[in-house]
Amino acid sequence: MDDRTANILRAAQSVGASWALLSAPDTVAYAARHVAGIETGPSPFDGGPTLALVGPDGQIHITCNELEAGLSSDANRAYSYVSLGFSDLRPITARYGDALRAMLDATKPTGGVAIEARCCPAVVVEALMPFGAVAPFDVALDRTRSIKTAPEIEALRQCARITADGQNAVADAVRAGDAELTAWRDIRLAMEIAAGTRLPVAGDFVTGRARTALIGGPPTDRLMARGDPVISDLAPRVNGYWGDSCRTGCIGHVSEDLRKMHALTHDAYQMVRDTLRPGISAHDFDAPLRAMILDAGYSNSIHMGHGIGTSVHEWPRLVPGEQAMLRPGMVLMVEPGAYHPDVGGVRLEQMFLITEDGHEVLSPFEIPQEMPVI
Amino acid sequence: MDDRTANILRAAQSVGASWALLSAPDTVAYAARHVAGIETGPSPFDGGPTLALVGPDGQIHITCNELEAGLSSDANRAYSYVSLGFSDLRPITARYGDALRAMLDATKPTGGVAIEARCCPAVVVEALMPFGAVAPFDVALDRTRSIKTAPEIEALRQCARITADGQNAVADAVRAGDAELTAWRDIRLAMEIAAGTRLPVAGDFVTGRARTALIGGPPTDRLMARGDPVISDLAPRVNGYWGDSCRTGCIGHVSEDLRKMHALTHDAYQMVRDTLRPGISAHDFDAPLRAMILDAGYSNSIHMGHGIGTSVHEWPRLVPGEQAMLRPGMVLMVEPGAYHPDVGGVRLEQMFLITEDGHEVLSPFEIPQEMPVI
Repeated sequence: MDDRTANILRAAQSVGASWALLSAPDTVAYAARHVAGIETGPSPFDGGPTLALVGPDGQIHITCNELEAGLSSDANRAYSYVSLGFSDLRPITARYGDALRAMLDATKPTGGVAIEARCCPAVVVEALMPFGAVAPFDVALDRTRSIKTAPEIEALRQCARITADGQNAVADAVRAGDAELTAWRDIRLAMEIAAGTRLPVAGDFVTGRARTALIGGPPTDRLMARGDPVISDLAPRVNGYWGDSCRTGCIGHVSEDLRKMHALTHDAYQMVRDTLRPGISAHDFDAPLRAMILDAGYSNSIHMGHGIGTSVHEWPRLVPGEQAMLRPGMVLMVEPGAYHPDVGGVRLEQMFLITEDGHEVLSPFEIPQEMPVI
Repeated sequence: MDDRTANILRAAQSVGASWALLSAPDTVAYAARHVAGIETGPSPFDGGPTLALVGPDGQIHITCNELEAGLSSDANRAYSYVSLGFSDLRPITARYGDALRAMLDATKPTGGVAIEARCCPAVVVEALMPFGAVAPFDVALDRTRSIKTAPEIEALRQCARITADGQNAVADAVRAGDAELTAWRDIRLAMEIAAGTRLPVAGDFVTGRARTALIGGPPTDRLMARGDPVISDLAPRVNGYWGDSCRTGCIGHVSEDLRKMHALTHDAYQMVRDTLRPGISAHDFDAPLRAMILDAGYSNSIHMGHGIGTSVHEWPRLVPGEQAMLRPGMVLMVEPGAYHPDVGGVRLEQMFLITEDGHEVLSPFEIPQEMPVI
């Protein structure tokens, strides 16, 4: 049985269930390496969310529309329904219901089914009722996913490499007088060419004092100018896993205020390299970094980092009050940043694997000590 | 009361309910002009889907994460919960549940609530139970949305304009020797610059005989070559509404086989202009177009068109067997195409408003009679 499958079943057992039913794009990708398109929202050809049912024997069964039937790398059987085709013109919810019931009739998931409260549809819970109890396991699932398997770490390394291709394209892509969206176009292309396909890309691309001081946001038609700080926070999804990253540079010229802000953020980055290890809590890791930034007169109102995997933000979050312990096998984004309305913002972010005695940097790009001129 | 609100309540009443609860990104956008990002999948900062509750008095209430609290143009009140913030570290499903219950306690939706079977979570139905019955109304909602209100038609006109900016960028963007993704980058940018923001973009960008013969697909790292047919099917979402469109050209040189295929598809387009009017069924509209393509020895295994609005594909679909009548106020994409494995594919698509006595073309770009050289 695959390690991820064992993780899912262990999480199900923690709520008294023998089976697990996943119903979100990221958890279905986690369970079955079933990676569907997400860039245009839920498919209009879906009668309900794609489902992955994991049995106590480790077998994985999928309910999905006909277009996705061949997507699962790890599923043992897909129960699909007519969607883009038109051989069945009944309401799509009826077609989905038939595929779901076919899956349940074939598998007979008795002994309790763990579901995701955040997304499991009422019609799915209703269809499960004849087989026994259902129990939500969102929290247990989040926690079990935080320890990555060896193949997951390889997948995240690949994401980190393609993310680095994006970061390394920033200097050529950014030109004073162009719109942020024009630079974003070229940065995104560098990652898409490296992957050979369109990629969902999360993150931020903000330029200038006012926008960078607000931490993040999508690129707009704002025209970039000499002296502008540029926060490029790039997070592509590649084969179902996410990369993430951030660097900050200045166009043509670095002001003294921004030079100081970058130097302080680089000091925080050095503290990350000195302190990131297993056995420290998220709270205790975050606290001195946050204090360093606030003591210097800057703000940092967001998390200092987060897990990453088939979701771009996973448990644990590196925030005040979070008592989760960092453990070997976690892959964490760490992103110290400093922000000030009169200066702008700087953020530096890499991907880290927590090892038995410290960490390994998975992001193959440099974090420069001096604020780079781009 | 807004026409869309009245439409939603009428659909709810058709299943015996006084209230309606929407839970998909496109239906929440329809109800409340609440347009959330969709490009990176469901937000990791959501404890459940954003909800729009429409009351019999026409008031609209939203449950959403704190980042979306200001998004709704038309909602009367948003009930939000801590998401990206970290002042509340309880499980996000608990925070979502609190916001949902606050909305229900304030509104007391008695008299029946219509829900969407395809996406309404079990936890939401459970929270509704104390107030009375729930009933699915997916089919009724799909049908009521098909007749667009005057503001919706204006929104779709804007989408059609921005889509045309994309189509008009194709000729400059496509260069033999470049990857499809490189052309896509420039076409996408033309639409994003016109909108001033990142846009979700659905559709197809396929080049060469083999790929165009398969109707569609996303752009890849395939290098384009002289003589290649190019199908550019562009569908951006702008302010919550979708555009769609398709043209087909050839790089540098048009073969005789492709010239004939385009001429036949243009004949089909002319038949669309001659026959698209209210009072004809989707089946009867589709049939002669489909026959014309098949009789010429080509295939067309997809729909001849579809509704469009806050979803890129809406009811009715223009397919064999669909008895829905075309009615004034519908906005339809019509997309005759011809495909052959030995030749490639050609598709031509514009956006049409069904009027009282015929139709109006909403797409402000030309459909050339001769296959264009690009």
